[in-house]
Amino acid sequence: MQPSARVATIPHMDIAIPMYDRFTALDAIGPYEVLSRLPGARVSWLAHEPGLVRTDNHMLALEATAAFEDLPTPEVIVVPGGVGTRALLDDERLLGWLRTAHVSSTWTTSVCTGSLLLGAAGILDGLRATTHWLELETLARFGAQPTSERVVPQGRVVTAAGVSSGIDMALWLAGQIAGEQFARAVQLLIEYDPQPPYDCGSTAKAGPELTAMVRERVAELR
Amino acid sequence: MQPSARVATIPHMDIAIPMYDRFTALDAIGPYEVLSRLPGARVSWLAHEPGLVRTDNHMLALEATAAFEDLPTPEVIVVPGGVGTRALLDDERLLGWLRTAHVSSTWTTSVCTGSLLLGAAGILDGLRATTHWLELETLARFGAQPTSERVVPQGRVVTAAGVSSGIDMALWLAGQIAGEQFARAVQLLIEYDPQPPYDCGSTAKAGPELTAMVRERVAELR
Repeated sequence: MQPSARVATIPHMDIAIPMYDRFTALDAIGPYEVLSRLPGARVSWLAHEPGLVRTDNHMLALEATAAFEDLPTPEVIVVPGGVGTRALLDDERLLGWLRTAHVSSTWTTSVCTGSLLLGAAGILDGLRATTHWLELETLARFGAQPTSERVVPQGRVVTAAGVSSGIDMALWLAGQIAGEQFARAVQLLIEYDPQPPYDCGSTAKAGPELTAMVRERVAELR
Repeated sequence: MQPSARVATIPHMDIAIPMYDRFTALDAIGPYEVLSRLPGARVSWLAHEPGLVRTDNHMLALEATAAFEDLPTPEVIVVPGGVGTRALLDDERLLGWLRTAHVSSTWTTSVCTGSLLLGAAGILDGLRATTHWLELETLARFGAQPTSERVVPQGRVVTAAGVSSGIDMALWLAGQIAGEQFARAVQLLIEYDPQPPYDCGSTAKAGPELTAMVRERVAELR
């Protein structure tokens, strides 16, 4: 869909989504569903090697069509989170690719604990940044200033909170890239008029009891 | 995650997500991200044949691990939408599987134009149902009563509106299956505290001008 003639002249925009074992699917698919509709968008699913990459619960596999190094200069980078980030905080191949790609990218973004990878690559040093609420303190380790806002733009670096926040981040980003009218058209096309059945999607709204319960259960599972 | 001891005794719950060429990824991944966290959940990605299935824009492939017939009696069925539904409205193999699986399912659900497939299978006859706003009138063809509500439960048949609505539907369903406390924990875990940058996710909110523009552009692309 190209609702705006203004942006239809953009030839190509490479959007790189790096995957890894045990990433969280919605972290990646939320932004993909929005950004793939931008004029000229070409989404590339990258991994250490081309092939199937499994999500956090191993119940789903997505296809990576290229290795990280095959796309050295994407315009947009979207790093999803997931429990798999833990094993990659010193993975020089992924972190090196992130560092290099970030030099020329127009936007470098993350969803959920994807920001820990940006942090480990040195990209968040001195910046305000966010991540999944369970890992907010971890960001400080990388010189970032943790904040619990949902979408945190810092120049061309944008971090988003847990899992579902990538949709909000990507719509904001679509507005920056293709203009507000285009972004509004995409929001209507994906019928993003959220009506969550409960009002507990942040720790502030969930309250201490539910928050503590989820924190304990996640700790048990780990 | 199993925050509630009450539901930890459920042994297995097979969740079937049928895919097909040109389905919309978020239609499937939204519900998957919620429902896969239910106690005993086993998500199966089905297709005409096991192998890679491409999304509507062909920029992404997900792995189907089994054919429809390999899972004849899932507890939960989630049918995603996408432009590919058009080619399947008389696909007796998929429709036959839906009919049979629906006989014993606990919940038969759809997101976006996935409801057209439920309709074509005869499952929506006489029921109120919804779909993507662009296809709402099409539902009447199958004996359903179209409504523009976001999540429409009719006994054990639940239809949801366009693309992103599957998250709301799945959280509601999680509450029905595992109790409200569990569903609230999942909502917090996926940090679903939506903050869309614009207030235009339904045709009522978008207004006639934006709605007409999107309708025209989609018609052009087809």
